[in-house]
Amino acid sequence: MARTKGDHEARRRDVSEAVWRVLAGKGFTGLTLRAVAAELGATTGLLTHYFPTKQALVGYALDILEQRTLGRPRRTGGDGLAAFRDALLDILPLTAAATDSNRIWVSSWDTALSDAGLSGDYARKYAAGRDRLRDRVAAAQQLGELPPGDPGAIAAGAQAFVLGLVVQALFDPAAFPPERQVAMLDTYLAALTR
Amino acid sequence: MARTKGDHEARRRDVSEAVWRVLAGKGFTGLTLRAVAAELGATTGLLTHYFPTKQALVGYALDILEQRTLGRPRRTGGDGLAAFRDALLDILPLTAAATDSNRIWVSSWDTALSDAGLSGDYARKYAAGRDRLRDRVAAAQQLGELPPGDPGAIAAGAQAFVLGLVVQALFDPAAFPPERQVAMLDTYLAALTR
Repeated sequence: MARTKGDHEARRRDVSEAVWRVLAGKGFTGLTLRAVAAELGATTGLLTHYFPTKQALVGYALDILEQRTLGRPRRTGGDGLAAFRDALLDILPLTAAATDSNRIWVSSWDTALSDAGLSGDYARKYAAGRDRLRDRVAAAQQLGELPPGDPGAIAAGAQAFVLGLVVQALFDPAAFPPERQVAMLDTYLAALTR
Repeated sequence: MARTKGDHEARRRDVSEAVWRVLAGKGFTGLTLRAVAAELGATTGLLTHYFPTKQALVGYALDILEQRTLGRPRRTGGDGLAAFRDALLDILPLTAAATDSNRIWVSSWDTALSDAGLSGDYARKYAAGRDRLRDRVAAAQQLGELPPGDPGAIAAGAQAFVLGLVVQALFDPAAFPPERQVAMLDTYLAALTR
């Protein structure tokens, strides 16, 4: 039977999904052609067609992570301080999907730190995240919801707090259920408004 | 020449040091017998004597990380709020040695999250760290240096903040030099005292 473009796209989606499930379960440490093949119910041989090297597989995994992060649902509609809070809530592992995604991000840090180019990409990504937070801080200050102060510094502090909370919640979900994460964030934000 | 106990101990120290240097440069992703052998100027064959499997090498690396963390120099002499601040400063990558150690910790998260047993160990380690911080928060409250409030919650917030700051500083040391890390921590602590 001739392969159609639709088949090809469907197969690519299956491969992406299998890579994502391997990453969510085993991290980059466990990302091998064999593991993806098992998840996909395919042969390792078929996968070497997509990923001739381990590096190609890791690069593909990083691309999926980037795309899924860009495409993830985000809280909207808030304004000023509420919009700042929404952006921080969007980062936290409050749902199963956000937990998988965070677990894969944290897992990717080892790979990223081992490669100067990737490490630079990550630094730029986090800096861009801080810039977006900074704009929301500045808007909240304009509205009088946050006191004056360097919005960039406030954004960097909030990003640190949320990243660390992600790590705590991934290792100890029982100690950091969603409601505690939200309460901790709200305590953090309340301290900023004083 | 007969091998003495001293030779054996010296060789173990050399192996530990080589494993540490590989981890600091390449993380757990780059931790292979081949990389350790190259760092040590030895053959891969010699190393299989120490580490018959990859798992044995990873286990050994995790032990070194634990030992070096327990044995690292710590700030002492502070009391109350100063002791709380010292414990948080002890975590941050403010020196080259602390940067290596943090880089290896962050790198180990992928490995730890992929293994239920290890993940539990890490959760207990971080919980123990929070307990130590909580005791310092309670002491600072006793001295009237921090306002009343659940000391465990304050400790968890501070641990989140510091862990996230570690990650930011590892990826972007130029944006987060030691003096900025200390200033951010002091801003965080100042907000707690209000």
